[in-house]
Amino acid sequence: MSEPFRIAIAGLGTVGVGVIKILTENKDVITQRAGREIEIVAVSARSKDKDRGVNIDGYEWFDNTADISACESADAIVELVGGSEGVAADVVRAALSGGKHVVTANKALVAHHGSELAQTAEDNNVSLMYEAAVAGGIPVIKMMREGLAANNYNAVYGILNGTCNYILTVMRETGADFGDVLKDAQEFGYAEADPTFDIEGIDAAHKLCILTSIAFGVKPDFDAMKIKGITQINATDIAYATEFGYRIKLLGIARKIDGKIMQVLEPCLVPINSPMGIVEDVYNAVYVEGDFVETPLITGKGAGEGPTASSVVADIIDLARGLNIPTFGVPVSALQDAQWIDLGETQARYYLRLEVVDQPGVIADISAILKEQDISIEGMVQRSRDPGQPVPIVLTLHDARHANMANAVEQIEALDACKEKPCLMRIEEL
Amino acid sequence: MSEPFRIAIAGLGTVGVGVIKILTENKDVITQRAGREIEIVAVSARSKDKDRGVNIDGYEWFDNTADISACESADAIVELVGGSEGVAADVVRAALSGGKHVVTANKALVAHHGSELAQTAEDNNVSLMYEAAVAGGIPVIKMMREGLAANNYNAVYGILNGTCNYILTVMRETGADFGDVLKDAQEFGYAEADPTFDIEGIDAAHKLCILTSIAFGVKPDFDAMKIKGITQINATDIAYATEFGYRIKLLGIARKIDGKIMQVLEPCLVPINSPMGIVEDVYNAVYVEGDFVETPLITGKGAGEGPTASSVVADIIDLARGLNIPTFGVPVSALQDAQWIDLGETQARYYLRLEVVDQPGVIADISAILKEQDISIEGMVQRSRDPGQPVPIVLTLHDARHANMANAVEQIEALDACKEKPCLMRIEEL
Repeated sequence: MSEPFRIAIAGLGTVGVGVIKILTENKDVITQRAGREIEIVAVSARSKDKDRGVNIDGYEWFDNTADISACESADAIVELVGGSEGVAADVVRAALSGGKHVVTANKALVAHHGSELAQTAEDNNVSLMYEAAVAGGIPVIKMMREGLAANNYNAVYGILNGTCNYILTVMRETGADFGDVLKDAQEFGYAEADPTFDIEGIDAAHKLCILTSIAFGVKPDFDAMKIKGITQINATDIAYATEFGYRIKLLGIARKIDGKIMQVLEPCLVPINSPMGIVEDVYNAVYVEGDFVETPLITGKGAGEGPTASSVVADIIDLARGLNIPTFGVPVSALQDAQWIDLGETQARYYLRLEVVDQPGVIADISAILKEQDISIEGMVQRSRDPGQPVPIVLTLHDARHANMANAVEQIEALDACKEKPCLMRIEEL
Repeated sequence: MSEPFRIAIAGLGTVGVGVIKILTENKDVITQRAGREIEIVAVSARSKDKDRGVNIDGYEWFDNTADISACESADAIVELVGGSEGVAADVVRAALSGGKHVVTANKALVAHHGSELAQTAEDNNVSLMYEAAVAGGIPVIKMMREGLAANNYNAVYGILNGTCNYILTVMRETGADFGDVLKDAQEFGYAEADPTFDIEGIDAAHKLCILTSIAFGVKPDFDAMKIKGITQINATDIAYATEFGYRIKLLGIARKIDGKIMQVLEPCLVPINSPMGIVEDVYNAVYVEGDFVETPLITGKGAGEGPTASSVVADIIDLARGLNIPTFGVPVSALQDAQWIDLGETQARYYLRLEVVDQPGVIADISAILKEQDISIEGMVQRSRDPGQPVPIVLTLHDARHANMANAVEQIEALDACKEKPCLMRIEEL
């Protein structure tokens, strides 16, 4: 058997501890599969003495996490610090430049600096591995970079944030409103104390950005993405969506349209029994359209110590086995600058909820605005009646040009009778 | 860029033609992803002149398919002849012995001769790749051998035969009986003229046998598997299953129980909204329980030219990229002889349909037999009444020892009033 494959771990939070647990508890089978032992040689974190439930005495300790990339004996640096800048970025850059492989779970880093890091990896003939960065335990990076590598991708759809999917599921099951469910989720540990990155869609957008790059061979371009979170969705939306036969999902969509790429991260309505509609709770899912394989779907736990660490260790095993795949599936020289589609020119069916004062002429005003924008109403529901008070009106709209839809919403919002920002969502018939 | 990676294709049926189409149509992106050109240098099939819709003039032609393994310029032989013996086995053995990689879609060959072929591959430092052998376009071999390699597997469940799943789905949707749906399926090309391998479960059992090996690091042992097809299932079963909240699926199950392995391929009842219950039509699915990743699921088209060829080409790209993974995920020397569990000792809930003459005392007799075998009735339904004529009685039974259940069924079948072989199915609460 060959020399051990040696790793140094930067960051001993939940995932870092999970990695140590897996490598310890499953040592035998991992050694057989990797063809060699995997040895942890060094670790670093904020505090050496914190009780983490794993014994780190046998590993070299780095007080300064940034220094661990220089750990002489390590073949690979496992970066689990997180964040697109600062220590995490420093460690990864230094490791790759120094000819060490990197395994990371850091979606923000890859989404923001992917091209640069891929180039550094390539220049130094090492690998940047990040299976755990997207959809936790589900090997979706491997599926797209390797398993479906024979295909030209037409589209990739993802439910990429477990916290949001959990909140939306509980909202549907209980009828409760967003704020209350979020509060419970925070108490139960399903949402962070500061949930902004999750509920505003940033976390999922980082992941989608990476999937877009692999699918279409383009440089990650996080700033080009249109992002909308789930904070505006209320119990009325959930109830009507169900009544219409849909689920609301925070959906990442990357799709080729006439040679350009549409890339959006926003809540959408998807049919209840569709591949994305059935994915509930904290589960993530990625659904791919390839020109030959058609439409495979992969789903599973998208976060948590075990699943995320499982993917980190799978990457380490891959490296120990000698795998070397270009960061985004093709050499950096082949990565294109994406041609993004003008979202205004895309077509979709829409769901629109308005909160308008129940007074004569309101429906006429709304209808006129929609007509002027060439948007055809498929259905309209107003259930509650409360003359002179705001009531919800829900519309579904036939295929409409997005720019027209946006114009219409702007004009409706400007009506005196409109008392809240309208809630507009794409309907995706997967 | 490196030298091209050169392949010779044995067998130009649907999948072989699909491989040529993909390598031609997606040449640019495949070359980028593989890091080098993939070049078809030779082909062989029964007839050279048959019109297959692809141009094979540029490739060396072998009249005798067995000879193609000796093709000097090929780095890998792609075996798409099929069958566990004969030409397919000859070609694969000769190729591996001669130091060439092999890519195959041949589940029978790997299930029957996997250990021997793995040894030959290892001895000659080449790879035996067979993603297309299990679940067509879904990269399940890659998921289990690589993507989840950090885990000890507790179980793997598979819906592995698209024809059977299609028949069961149509039976449910139309209420039609097995024979009629099969006839339609044959007319529409969803079932073979001789459907035995599909409907008797052999094809799915080959695939399960392979998954068992990868999951538990054991030598494939097809003869050890208990196999039951779907021919005995009728419209009554389908209707009652739905009423009870279940779907009937031809399910492959490989599960660790007290250090031994249970490996069965048979129709089971699974909850309608469970990961396996929602997989319908010609779709396949594999559901895994790992000790850290928990329960990922992968699903997609399990057969057909495009999906199957997609997996064959993915294997070729892997080889061109230099991937070299042991055939069953660990070196042959680490593969164990499986300790199979005595199925009689396993416990399960059961569904039991009897066709018995509607006469006094029948229910008493059946109840007495079940009681004697220590089997507790959960529910019993007899809807139709036709004194003196056979009517269906459907029972669901609490957790029972399989051997007791088998005894009971044998005794019930021996009753004068029992007019058909009882239909017994496991209930799996996934």
